Amino acid sequence: MTNHELIHQFKKTRAHSVALCAPLAPEDYNAQPVAFASPPKWHLAHITWFFEEMILKKFDENYVIFNKDFSYLFNSYYQTVGERATRSLRGAMTRPLIEEIYSYRSYVDKHIVALLKSKLSLEIETLVTLGIQHEQQHQELLLTDLKHTFSFNPLHPVYHENFNLVQDTNKADGWLAMPEGIYEIGHQGDGFCFDNELGRHKVFLHEYKLAKGLVTNRDFIAFIVAGGYQEFKYWLDEGWSWVQEENIIAPLYWIQKEGTWFNYTLAGLKPVDLDAILSHVSFYEAQAFATFKNMRLPTEFEWEAASEKFNWGKRWEWTYSAYLPYPNFKVADGAVGEYNGKFMINTMVLRGSSVATSEGHERNTYRNFFHPKYRWQYTGIRLVK
Amino acid sequence: MTNHELIHQFKKTRAHSVALCAPLAPEDYNAQPVAFASPPKWHLAHITWFFEEMILKKFDENYVIFNKDFSYLFNSYYQTVGERATRSLRGAMTRPLIEEIYSYRSYVDKHIVALLKSKLSLEIETLVTLGIQHEQQHQELLLTDLKHTFSFNPLHPVYHENFNLVQDTNKADGWLAMPEGIYEIGHQGDGFCFDNELGRHKVFLHEYKLAKGLVTNRDFIAFIVAGGYQEFKYWLDEGWSWVQEENIIAPLYWIQKEGTWFNYTLAGLKPVDLDAILSHVSFYEAQAFATFKNMRLPTEFEWEAASEKFNWGKRWEWTYSAYLPYPNFKVADGAVGEYNGKFMINTMVLRGSSVATSEGHERNTYRNFFHPKYRWQYTGIRLVK
Amino acid sequence: MTNHELIHQFKKTRAHSVALCAPLAPEDYNAQPVAFASPPKWHLAHITWFFEEMILKKFDENYVIFNKDFSYLFNSYYQTVGERATRSLRGAMTRPLIEEIYSYRSYVDKHIVALLKSKLSLEIETLVTLGIQHEQQHQELLLTDLKHTFSFNPLHPVYHENFNLVQDTNKADGWLAMPEGIYEIGHQGDGFCFDNELGRHKVFLHEYKLAKGLVTNRDFIAFIVAGGYQEFKYWLDEGWSWVQEENIIAPLYWIQKEGTWFNYTLAGLKPVDLDAILSHVSFYEAQAFATFKNMRLPTEFEWEAASEKFNWGKRWEWTYSAYLPYPNFKVADGAVGEYNGKFMINTMVLRGSSVATSEGHERNTYRNFFHPKYRWQYTGIRLVK
Amino acid sequence: MTNHELIHQFKKTRAHSVALCAPLAPEDYNAQPVAFASPPKWHLAHITWFFEEMILKKFDENYVIFNKDFSYLFNSYYQTVGERATRSLRGAMTRPLIEEIYSYRSYVDKHIVALLKSKLSLEIETLVTLGIQHEQQHQELLLTDLKHTFSFNPLHPVYHENFNLVQDTNKADGWLAMPEGIYEIGHQGDGFCFDNELGRHKVFLHEYKLAKGLVTNRDFIAFIVAGGYQEFKYWLDEGWSWVQEENIIAPLYWIQKEGTWFNYTLAGLKPVDLDAILSHVSFYEAQAFATFKNMRLPTEFEWEAASEKFNWGKRWEWTYSAYLPYPNFKVADGAVGEYNGKFMINTMVLRGSSVATSEGHERNTYRNFFHPKYRWQYTGIRLVK
Repeated sequence: MTNHELIHQFKKTRAHSVALCAPLAPEDYNAQPVAFASPPKWHLAHITWFFEEMILKKFDENYVIFNKDFSYLFNSYYQTVGERATRSLRGAMTRPLIEEIYSYRSYVDKHIVALLKSKLSLEIETLVTLGIQHEQQHQELLLTDLKHTFSFNPLHPVYHENFNLVQDTNKADGWLAMPEGIYEIGHQGDGFCFDNELGRHKVFLHEYKLAKGLVTNRDFIAFIVAGGYQEFKYWLDEGWSWVQEENIIAPLYWIQKEGTWFNYTLAGLKPVDLDAILSHVSFYEAQAFATFKNMRLPTEFEWEAASEKFNWGKRWEWTYSAYLPYPNFKVADGAVGEYNGKFMINTMVLRGSSVATSEGHERNTYRNFFHPKYRWQYTGIRLVK
Repeated sequence: MTNHELIHQFKKTRAHSVALCAPLAPEDYNAQPVAFASPPKWHLAHITWFFEEMILKKFDENYVIFNKDFSYLFNSYYQTVGERATRSLRGAMTRPLIEEIYSYRSYVDKHIVALLKSKLSLEIETLVTLGIQHEQQHQELLLTDLKHTFSFNPLHPVYHENFNLVQDTNKADGWLAMPEGIYEIGHQGDGFCFDNELGRHKVFLHEYKLAKGLVTNRDFIAFIVAGGYQEFKYWLDEGWSWVQEENIIAPLYWIQKEGTWFNYTLAGLKPVDLDAILSHVSFYEAQAFATFKNMRLPTEFEWEAASEKFNWGKRWEWTYSAYLPYPNFKVADGAVGEYNGKFMINTMVLRGSSVATSEGHERNTYRNFFHPKYRWQYTGIRLVK
Repeated sequence: MTNHELIHQFKKTRAHSVALCAPLAPEDYNAQPVAFASPPKWHLAHITWFFEEMILKKFDENYVIFNKDFSYLFNSYYQTVGERATRSLRGAMTRPLIEEIYSYRSYVDKHIVALLKSKLSLEIETLVTLGIQHEQQHQELLLTDLKHTFSFNPLHPVYHENFNLVQDTNKADGWLAMPEGIYEIGHQGDGFCFDNELGRHKVFLHEYKLAKGLVTNRDFIAFIVAGGYQEFKYWLDEGWSWVQEENIIAPLYWIQKEGTWFNYTLAGLKPVDLDAILSHVSFYEAQAFATFKNMRLPTEFEWEAASEKFNWGKRWEWTYSAYLPYPNFKVADGAVGEYNGKFMINTMVLRGSSVATSEGHERNTYRNFFHPKYRWQYTGIRLVK
Repeated sequence: MTNHELIHQFKKTRAHSVALCAPLAPEDYNAQPVAFASPPKWHLAHITWFFEEMILKKFDENYVIFNKDFSYLFNSYYQTVGERATRSLRGAMTRPLIEEIYSYRSYVDKHIVALLKSKLSLEIETLVTLGIQHEQQHQELLLTDLKHTFSFNPLHPVYHENFNLVQDTNKADGWLAMPEGIYEIGHQGDGFCFDNELGRHKVFLHEYKLAKGLVTNRDFIAFIVAGGYQEFKYWLDEGWSWVQEENIIAPLYWIQKEGTWFNYTLAGLKPVDLDAILSHVSFYEAQAFATFKNMRLPTEFEWEAASEKFNWGKRWEWTYSAYLPYPNFKVADGAVGEYNGKFMINTMVLRGSSVATSEGHERNTYRNFFHPKYRWQYTGIRLVK
């Protein structure tokens, strides 16, 4: 990639984060009602900190740190970098102020651009590209975290009237038949990928049929109406406990008023569109629904093997694959290495990408992963039989 | 009281709440890291809601409610009024915006003043006075809650350079000897008081000696140095569990750096002044310290009986009296009646008032009360022997 | 007291503990479903350990400890004696075996009797008397803990057919009028009492009327039928949370079957006798019931001042007095001093004694105390107006 | 299988359960300090209940139920059968008595044998075989649960002097090289297997080297000494949280005294034998140890593919395979179908069998599974490079 191209991508990505915050009031930047969803201010600062910490401090010998406290405050996970501010207290950090964060962004942007103009090594290109991808990940989180925070407000705040995000419908239906055989799985080529996609390897798959379309709200309401949430036999034991303890009766953000289902969207509270693709379900719900239909979820290998033959990109799709290392998976040295491998236990793989995914961030080898209970991403269900 | 006097008091109190928020940035208005400490925006709105709900809706027949959602959002406890927004989610309510809250305040102020000008009944006067006292209570909470929120920030934010609040020293020492006899306890006269102060009654007290000064930081450091926090024999069983589970080693907000004690204040992180009066201790610590000194804490009756003979007003002083009803205590009807009596279990009485108490809010019959573990108020220790 | 008398009391008390265990199968000796209720084997061993630890080890220079591990295993609270076995794991201690515990009892009995015969000092007499009273306390706990353990068993085990314990009725009704004045409170005379009863002192009481009878099951069912458990206004805030979180709808051990109330008793599951005195309520329920009746609970001082003028002794009666030290309360030195004073916070006083109290253990100055939520003792309600 | 053979297997298995309880005192039959480990009495009854519920009630038309309460009390999981007694309260069920359980066993044994003699269908044979395998599973649990219960006792009870179980050493070392290719995985043939082993299918494996021996105590102490438990980089994120929260510093049952490691065994407290095979580690520890060695754990497919070429059978071996359904996995109808498939989430596969496994219960296709934190089974580590 040329300097020019990389600078262009960098600037475009950085501008997109700012654009996502344009509809926000200052009051919206800080709130964090649950530990797993971070406030916008933190996201804006953290993705900036990544460029400072991983690139400027190492490759720009004249670089003066913007504010030494930020290393501490805006670090997320990377335990090798130093002590972390407690995750659940991000919302308590009323200072630094929003304008300080925007100054921080400008300062770091200026130095990154200058660095890219003056000396672009492969190592720097690799890290800047990683930083761009990292920022794109946080763009999606910023939106989904914000939706989650807003959802606790009985006023149903509107982020943007044109940002419903859950009204898409399927463009195809029927089943895609895949023959048994050996398939190659994992990333290849020169493009960017995360470490967990590497180690391209062979898997043997038996024949299977994959649905061309995703499960719709109409499909799922049939499950609700049939008493699916009250029927033990459809659920994994752990899923059943989750349903009981959390008193789950519908997908996240759904509210029933006088017999009609509404769902909270970034455009406010809206009636559930029966034709639209279902969103905001946990793995437990996805698995129970598949069992109810006498079908199953695909493995991540089945999904990837067929991924060029169907449309995807609206929902993160739950697979019945645990998130585990590929053969010959290697953890990178240092802080960057803490990125993905640390979570390879008790999480399930999601494939595809979602309506909230930033442009250019999707890949058919991408492995997203969450604990099976989480629902605040734009998650959906594709069936296999 | 004349209309004029009451309007003056009302305006003065309302203005003081706004003045307390003058040093705040918009980012500071919303944060709530722990459920028991509410954000400034909520306090500002809730004390306004009280005037709207308890007075304007009942006595001003032309009154148009400012915003019906606010009844729900800014109610605190009063379960008879309707469903409450979950207390721990006050910080999640990024909307309504700060400016809407200030508009709400102005709107209610205008109508209350108009009401007071037009028709002042005893009932209205009583409720407006209650509203003023209620707002003063929340002024103290606003400051102490804010200090608590700021204390989680490793940057040690400064609320105001001149607002240290913990540097006062004792003006007297020695012991005040009180003879045995029957004393009258509880409020008398026409002035305002809360329901829990009523039912003036007689108590018999045996002779006792009360310290004229409060325990200082120097006194308490002697307890720490003597291993007081590690010595089971000084502690109540429940206090000992609290020390173990919470890993308590010093008063709240104290940090030791290279052998020196610092404490976080609203003026930032400052060295602990040895001569200053101790602050931010729990009842457990107060009781353990008294045991360590072979003394005890006063009962609330001993405190009140002697209260005209010593200086108080810098710290809320823990007593060894549980917060229980006085003989013939009557709960008021309706929402106002939920005010105090509901908490007469497992809380201990504090007497006096503190450096954060609004002017005119202190009384020698005032009964504050908290669970024995709480330390975020400006609490202190007075000994008896 | 003569040697002979003390030996007689000692033997009688020791034999009673064994008699209480006569109906038990070996399987019953060990179970502990909840941390606060100890298994019979532990009670039998612990009350024996008290005599060994506090008396034989100190006053019998030839005494050989029965088994050094028992000091650790059967200590209850006394932190000055050494490390304690975790309270909630008493049920896990399948060894030592029951027969070893009975051997331990015989061994200690033999040595105590020998000691009392050979050299009876005032100090020894005092400690043996304390040990007897301590064993009597545990006799009541043994029964109530066992009932609680049995209550988890859907088979409703019968301890003894003749041991219903909750069928007593009131012998008197009406109200006892007490005039205002100064009353003396606390133990006097040479008889045994606990440290928390000492410091006889004066209190001033305003006039009051005390019910001669206790609240009956019929009275309390009226509260249930009137929706008392669903009506916030009757409850303390903390009591209301308890009702909600624990889903409380009736006194402990009550089960409704086809419209009829049954209660689990030590004689098995029995229909609730409407005329019998109510049992197994928490302080929260007692206070809510009194509020429902527009009355209140007595203070412990009101109870004691009138205690010679009414019948008591069937239920431990909740008072609206927190368990706090009397004026001039002194904690005894050493392990014995950890007995009572350590719990003087967040517990409420119960006065009287119960159907499960061992003969000779009741006194009108006795101060029992529990956290307001507990119901497994034979607790009841006496009203004041 | 002939009637005779099946009756022989049945009797042998039933007798073995009784033999395992021979060293127990009555006190040992009931204790349950933690919810996941059931008391011996419950195991003895539950495995009997299985034969009554699944076979006698369906196939013996003259069968009279031994005691209808037992259906409720000794059901474990099978939610389709009816309401379950709360799992954590099994230790509270002091009744029925031990002798009643043994009568229950004899009664059911007699009827099963009679049934097998009179009419042996394939369906009955299948269910009796399942019952035998089920009882064998519980035999292993009975031993490991008992060890866990005993381990809470500071007296270190001895189950049997000759039952140490953790002193075995490896019989081979070095590495077994396996070529890449397609392997067949899953059960084949007529012998018994569980539903989760069915669906024999092909997997493609890349080449790998598997250790012939298991990790020893000496190997693992090197990890401890090197600070492995304190080094974040070796641990999965969730494993690291577990280490911190549970304060883990060694395998389960290990105690360090004056520099020497001891471990609690069923033969009492013994010094750790450096040459013996490591036992009682969690998946987290297994994975961290493998990372420390720059190696990894095998997948369950790698393990099974090589299983005829190395010795196994002393430890359940953790694999880096999540417990997921094989292709075409079918859940059986009814209660039996709740057996295995319900747990296919957030559990990891263990392969092999252990020193506590009953004879005849091991298979190279057997898939055991536990949450990664559990350590009370005889678990071990085999490395791959």
